[in-house]
Amino acid sequence: MKDRNALLERMTLDAAAVEEHLKKCLSPQEESYLPLFEAMRYSTLGGGKRIRAFLTLAFCRLLARDVTPALPFASAMEMMHAFSLIHDDLPCMDNDSMRRGKPSCHVAFGEAGALLAGDALMILSVETASRNEYVRKSTALTAVRDLTAFAGRFGMAGGQQLDLIGETEALDYDTLLSMHARKTGALIKAACRLGCYASDRYDEKSIGLADAYAEKIGLVFQIVDDVLDVTADEKKLGKHTGKDKESGKTTFLSFMTVDEALSRAGELTRGAQAVLPDGPQGVLLSDFAEWLLTRDR
Amino acid sequence: MKDRNALLERMTLDAAAVEEHLKKCLSPQEESYLPLFEAMRYSTLGGGKRIRAFLTLAFCRLLARDVTPALPFASAMEMMHAFSLIHDDLPCMDNDSMRRGKPSCHVAFGEAGALLAGDALMILSVETASRNEYVRKSTALTAVRDLTAFAGRFGMAGGQQLDLIGETEALDYDTLLSMHARKTGALIKAACRLGCYASDRYDEKSIGLADAYAEKIGLVFQIVDDVLDVTADEKKLGKHTGKDKESGKTTFLSFMTVDEALSRAGELTRGAQAVLPDGPQGVLLSDFAEWLLTRDR
Repeated sequence: MKDRNALLERMTLDAAAVEEHLKKCLSPQEESYLPLFEAMRYSTLGGGKRIRAFLTLAFCRLLARDVTPALPFASAMEMMHAFSLIHDDLPCMDNDSMRRGKPSCHVAFGEAGALLAGDALMILSVETASRNEYVRKSTALTAVRDLTAFAGRFGMAGGQQLDLIGETEALDYDTLLSMHARKTGALIKAACRLGCYASDRYDEKSIGLADAYAEKIGLVFQIVDDVLDVTADEKKLGKHTGKDKESGKTTFLSFMTVDEALSRAGELTRGAQAVLPDGPQGVLLSDFAEWLLTRDR
Repeated sequence: MKDRNALLERMTLDAAAVEEHLKKCLSPQEESYLPLFEAMRYSTLGGGKRIRAFLTLAFCRLLARDVTPALPFASAMEMMHAFSLIHDDLPCMDNDSMRRGKPSCHVAFGEAGALLAGDALMILSVETASRNEYVRKSTALTAVRDLTAFAGRFGMAGGQQLDLIGETEALDYDTLLSMHARKTGALIKAACRLGCYASDRYDEKSIGLADAYAEKIGLVFQIVDDVLDVTADEKKLGKHTGKDKESGKTTFLSFMTVDEALSRAGELTRGAQAVLPDGPQGVLLSDFAEWLLTRDR
């Protein structure tokens, strides 16, 4: 890593900026007494690594100076992610009672409350992207089209379906790759693309670069996730570990050892770094890829 | 009713056109073997009164000749509605095992499958609206903004939250009205507005007309729903009846008799009819309001 401190400082600043923006999106209003509004804030604010938001801001910064137009898109990405976690944690899905170091949404607000909070966050994610007033209307529409396509049946939802299948039957390696490309990869790709859109200076080349980078780090993220489920400290990770093995789920570790998995993740990381341009913003994204590879939570 | 046959014929034709369009949106593709895709089709195709789709087409027709641009919006409305039914029927919500005369989605595909199918339908609804190629991009964006606003926390999802609260504590009459304005009314309003947008000839006046009509018939729809839950034949209705009373839920019939409720619905219907323009399309919408009032399923 070229400059770990610069990266961590940037991540902290970006996370704070997005937190601020998310607070505005989810701020107490007339009807904020409703548990729904509280549940939405509970699961979105004050936690998470803000990986998707960071990527949106970073890709905007790669192409333009001002990242203000990227903030609504970054918040949209985090809300879409928060929605997916809430629904994934539900008893009928992964049945996870702990998330980001605190009780899952359905533990805190009941199943119906969590279901509803997830639905409303998903909708608010798209609405927030569509109401980005800093970009041209056609750009906001492009962002909405990508965000929905990548979150939907051929993207995240489709990946979730493959994941469900993988809980009861063994997936082959190609299906595992395809599952991850959708379940995690698709939203990471959307995050990078929306950053390009926010700059309003994107073209085929920059979108191609974003896609190539996203595909590789998306897979790295998932490999590391599978590894952490086996090796990590539960408290540090903020969620239960060892669940994959318990449930007999197909993961990367069904096909390779921890060392082989980390070696594969290392190759992918170098591949992601290779597509980046020179300059401080390229370095930041390169270091970020490295950080994803070596994270312990 | 001025011309019941003309209305029923138009409703049948419109429902068929929307069914055709929905089939294309949900058509078997490469990965249609996944249960997710089957569940989405199961809950969207081949059933329902297509009230929202009818309204979208009717309001487009009120302003323009060609309704082709309204079809993607009409399909979006029906998918958003189908999503809400799937999630409402889940065990943690209304726990309904029957819908449109067949087993609910979660009965047929399991809870996780139904959760996911609902999520994916909601996303596909917005995506379909955003990809309406027959209208200007700025119009598609306006449609997305309204669709998400009316489906979200201040609209349908917020109404659902109030409904949940109403299951355990008594709602006062104003809160009941507010609940219905959101839970059902908001999406009906979105349906009427999206029809206006599809015409690309909308202005403040036509949107105002759509809103006024929608607010009134939305409430009529809900009053009649509450009444049918008490009076209707289960088989004809295609879902279980008597559930409101069983669960102790606040409904219009907590505040008035069946006759009083129907009389109030009659007034609202006449109010909705009064805002419509003359001409065959106005008559159709006027008769439709009457049909909503007198429906038995």
